[in-house]
Amino acid sequence: MEEKRGAYVRERIACTILERAKLSLMNPALIEAKVEERTIDETAKPLIRLALEEGIETAWDRYEQQQPPCRYCASGLSCSRCAMGPCRIIPERQRFRGVCGADADLVVARNLLDMIATGAAAHSDHGREIVETLHKAARGEAEGYGITDPGKLRRVAGEYGIETGDRDDAAVAGDVALAMLEEFGTVKNAIQFVQRAPPQTLELWEAAGITPRSVDREIVEAMHRVHMGVGADYANVLLQGLRASLGDGWGGSLMATETSDILFGTPQVNMSRVNLAVLKDDRVNIALHGHNPVLSEMIVRAAAEPAMLELAEEAGSAGINLVGLCCTGNELLMRKGIPQAGNHLNQELIIATGALEVMIVDYQCIFPSLPRTASCFHTHIVSTSPKSKVPGSLYYPFYPESALETAREIVSLAIANFPNRNPGKVLIPGEPVEAMTGFSVEAIGHLFGGFKPVIDAIAEGSILGAAGVVGCNNPKVRHDEGHVTLTKELIRRGILVVETGCAAIASGKAGLLRPEAADLAAPGLANVCRTFGIPPVLHMGSCVDCSRILVLAAGLARELGVGIHQLPIAGAAPEWYSQKAVSIGSYFVASGVFTVLGVMPKIAGSGNVADLLTRGLNGLVHASFAVEPDPVRAADLIEAHIREKRNGLGI
Amino acid sequence: MEEKRGAYVRERIACTILERAKLSLMNPALIEAKVEERTIDETAKPLIRLALEEGIETAWDRYEQQQPPCRYCASGLSCSRCAMGPCRIIPERQRFRGVCGADADLVVARNLLDMIATGAAAHSDHGREIVETLHKAARGEAEGYGITDPGKLRRVAGEYGIETGDRDDAAVAGDVALAMLEEFGTVKNAIQFVQRAPPQTLELWEAAGITPRSVDREIVEAMHRVHMGVGADYANVLLQGLRASLGDGWGGSLMATETSDILFGTPQVNMSRVNLAVLKDDRVNIALHGHNPVLSEMIVRAAAEPAMLELAEEAGSAGINLVGLCCTGNELLMRKGIPQAGNHLNQELIIATGALEVMIVDYQCIFPSLPRTASCFHTHIVSTSPKSKVPGSLYYPFYPESALETAREIVSLAIANFPNRNPGKVLIPGEPVEAMTGFSVEAIGHLFGGFKPVIDAIAEGSILGAAGVVGCNNPKVRHDEGHVTLTKELIRRGILVVETGCAAIASGKAGLLRPEAADLAAPGLANVCRTFGIPPVLHMGSCVDCSRILVLAAGLARELGVGIHQLPIAGAAPEWYSQKAVSIGSYFVASGVFTVLGVMPKIAGSGNVADLLTRGLNGLVHASFAVEPDPVRAADLIEAHIREKRNGLGI
Repeated sequence: MEEKRGAYVRERIACTILERAKLSLMNPALIEAKVEERTIDETAKPLIRLALEEGIETAWDRYEQQQPPCRYCASGLSCSRCAMGPCRIIPERQRFRGVCGADADLVVARNLLDMIATGAAAHSDHGREIVETLHKAARGEAEGYGITDPGKLRRVAGEYGIETGDRDDAAVAGDVALAMLEEFGTVKNAIQFVQRAPPQTLELWEAAGITPRSVDREIVEAMHRVHMGVGADYANVLLQGLRASLGDGWGGSLMATETSDILFGTPQVNMSRVNLAVLKDDRVNIALHGHNPVLSEMIVRAAAEPAMLELAEEAGSAGINLVGLCCTGNELLMRKGIPQAGNHLNQELIIATGALEVMIVDYQCIFPSLPRTASCFHTHIVSTSPKSKVPGSLYYPFYPESALETAREIVSLAIANFPNRNPGKVLIPGEPVEAMTGFSVEAIGHLFGGFKPVIDAIAEGSILGAAGVVGCNNPKVRHDEGHVTLTKELIRRGILVVETGCAAIASGKAGLLRPEAADLAAPGLANVCRTFGIPPVLHMGSCVDCSRILVLAAGLARELGVGIHQLPIAGAAPEWYSQKAVSIGSYFVASGVFTVLGVMPKIAGSGNVADLLTRGLNGLVHASFAVEPDPVRAADLIEAHIREKRNGLGI
Repeated sequence: MEEKRGAYVRERIACTILERAKLSLMNPALIEAKVEERTIDETAKPLIRLALEEGIETAWDRYEQQQPPCRYCASGLSCSRCAMGPCRIIPERQRFRGVCGADADLVVARNLLDMIATGAAAHSDHGREIVETLHKAARGEAEGYGITDPGKLRRVAGEYGIETGDRDDAAVAGDVALAMLEEFGTVKNAIQFVQRAPPQTLELWEAAGITPRSVDREIVEAMHRVHMGVGADYANVLLQGLRASLGDGWGGSLMATETSDILFGTPQVNMSRVNLAVLKDDRVNIALHGHNPVLSEMIVRAAAEPAMLELAEEAGSAGINLVGLCCTGNELLMRKGIPQAGNHLNQELIIATGALEVMIVDYQCIFPSLPRTASCFHTHIVSTSPKSKVPGSLYYPFYPESALETAREIVSLAIANFPNRNPGKVLIPGEPVEAMTGFSVEAIGHLFGGFKPVIDAIAEGSILGAAGVVGCNNPKVRHDEGHVTLTKELIRRGILVVETGCAAIASGKAGLLRPEAADLAAPGLANVCRTFGIPPVLHMGSCVDCSRILVLAAGLARELGVGIHQLPIAGAAPEWYSQKAVSIGSYFVASGVFTVLGVMPKIAGSGNVADLLTRGLNGLVHASFAVEPDPVRAADLIEAHIREKRNGLGI
């Protein structure tokens, strides 16, 4: 397809203001009630109010419009996979099986496997792009990209058995990238990073037949199994889900993380700021939204060029202000200390500030309606991925080969848009919150002087255990409340929390990433935090960086000489919405980590599937899921689990 | 997972007889009406009658129970992909967008892309298994497998640039298999067989950005694009569907076909018999159902062993009678002349004959409820694929390394089950129909002495054009009527028909694969058929062998020096149901072949998607879809299209 740079995908979208009547929002008291019901993010509230008053549609409005949902879809009992259907399992109407003969268990399991495969595909295809960028950089085909962490490059090369010696970085990087790309294929049929798991965990996977063979193969086999007349037994179908998810967590996602570190630097502890108030009313504001640092790192570079700063001044601004959103934001926050504007449900609100010149998106979790939101403001949505191409956005296809040049074009576009900002419409609410981030596994190891001191602190009881709180926002949950309440409850009980994704951003906005948050922790944990000058909640990165949590868990397990499932740790996704989150939850559980979901997956239609996921998996991987929307009760479950595991270890 | 050979998956299923009252089937006249409404297959009718009378559930019953279907699912407007939903687009209730902001176009397009990816995954994962078997056979790790067509092996090796010379078959086969396995990965990022397409077609793909890079990669990228916040533009989403489907047709499926030919022999013209009457009342009857010849070829070998025949005689039978079903049946029919018992909607009826000792299944199009059907008879369902494991079946996991031994165990099981047959319950209806099959591209070339005589016959008008009639059965269409009516209409108009899959079986049952069917063809076509002693309908194989149709079309196009889209050819899938069929239809159209569907895909909810598929694609690949349930009108569309293409060529 011909790609005209900077042209609208399809066409410019005209501003549509919702009729208040349709939203039943004539009443200011009702507006206030909705604002409070929707979020606990104080900088989000004024913008939700504005959106409601001015009829700017947000995800919460669409969520309300979508009620009530279809009860068959909601419980996983609806199947539209083949053309003999669509079918629904409705026992009370004698619909026990679909046309093909699939029963409730199978229909639910196939739908869930599709979700896992989608999530694993998203992470892994993202990983592939970064590995390809490393490959191009190694061959000098990607202007602006180079090796930022040669130490990590050589450590990873060592894992792959690639000679390093006195070879130069580019040669080693080329071999590393090729070795990783091979693991997307079928020839090798093994993933090197899987060997990072402790032997006890590897044995469980072998026994269960869920050791992933390749990043892509498991996803494709999963899709094969959802085809009519293939996957037939719900448990067998879901086992492939575990396998595909392990290929994500220990494969595609971990490659994304490690390769990003090699290219852009392994995160180190740093301070930055979080929430919508990181926008600046006198600067050209550019938001970077999406997931892949391949794009955003080049924007950062372009925005710092003197020529761009001159242009920005000529346009009447005091400079260029880059802010992050969601996981692209986390990547930049972790490595560069770029301020983080917000998480999933902030993505429309940042436009409503009226102070955003450009939002650059790549892919994943980008509301396809963002250009509609932007149409009522001066903001340009710039989409950059050939995989996405959001209608109504300006499209600047972004390839590693020409990345820096494209980045300059986009930054110029933002600068040129600054004079179009209407100062009378600008609403930047509140003040940013300080946040300490950058807790890569390497940074944590460096900070504590290895894993042994962490193990000692757990063994002596000053730290009760650790929990990974991860995942998204979901309008089914009051924005950020699930994350923040659970996290506070956990640190109060002496449980060290590690976070990624939207969860980490929520904690940042709530001040839990400040070292001062140690005051909210149990005395033992608070003491550890104060000794090391860290908060009790460690920001470990983006969604693909949930793989860092796996590596951390593997490191602790190896230090103790046990399987991951024996550690006093747990996972939680209080506000998850995405298919990637389903894959993450699945690889957490498959890796031996008990995981509590705050939002019910669409599985209620099958008691057998629900039972397998919440109980049966214990017999296979010594871990399972739980669903608990109440964050305090979720903390109870996690604490009980951690105490049980401590007992198991005799500590 | 521990795999106990020959044990029930979960447990034996108890026989359940439907209450006639629930089916409203008390009335014999109603039963007769249903029998006539359901099929035109004369051997199927007595068994449908029996199933109705005795309360044995079939797909038609379940289809009736599933009426009315959900109208949102049926039109593609339902989305259960992420956990912010489920959502439905219901404009009359102000539900214009899902929670994420996706509109009707995007929701419909994502659902369709998921279907294409599922179908491409099914074919390609099947292809991978055969390529892996070739790889194992080459290394001497697969007992019983060898190179049956060394000529084809060396031709394919030549395409891949692999040296042949005086190297032995095993060495060449090992290299060929490795080269193909590489094309499932990302390192090479190209598929060799794509180069079989004529240059004009390749150029269209390049311009459209849909040249497939790898078999797995395109499927995984498709699943990435259905993730929330990735694919945003319906047309861009569907382009990836075309790319993934091309990776199936010219990649995974074509590899499956070529590698099967190398391992098991390239089909040559042969005579056999078709329909449910191929069962024999004095023999041990074993039905082979599914798709992968890796399994069935070993069963054929085991069943011919003297020891097995002795065992069969000891059990009181006159021998062992292997019959095929669906595409496994087509593979055996094409290469070995094994009788073909029936197509998709015959799979339950063959059990109802009471004369089937064992049905062996691997994967794809296997009703997961077959063991329920079998529970009321003495038939054992034997499932063999770790990807399927049908609950209630006896499970004999089948691996190339131990294939022959497993095959012997299964044949022995069938023999041991023969004495359990109740002769009083046996109903083998009618007589088999003769059929000429085995029309591989090589066989066609050999028969006509190259493509030139075919082109000449088309140019001079004795053959008007050619149509590929392919696809499944679907209870939405009277069983086989769509296939048979359309095929008869086409040959009557002088259009040579090539068929695969369930369509070819339908034609076989209707006598259209007999050379005598030339009597039903237009005079010119009839004359060609009589000259060469062939029917006007050529059976080209199984579903993955739709790739043979691509190769045939490419050969004709290259002979003429044009793109595939310029040929006077068309495709049709009158009774399709499966996701694989969606992928096949997509790669037909993407390859330039106008394709008429007899069953409406679930896209009616988006006028834009429907318009793109039925009109817009012409601007991109010079071909599009049409939907026409009436087979006579479908023939009108195909004839008009072929005449237009003839005009374009000036013939």
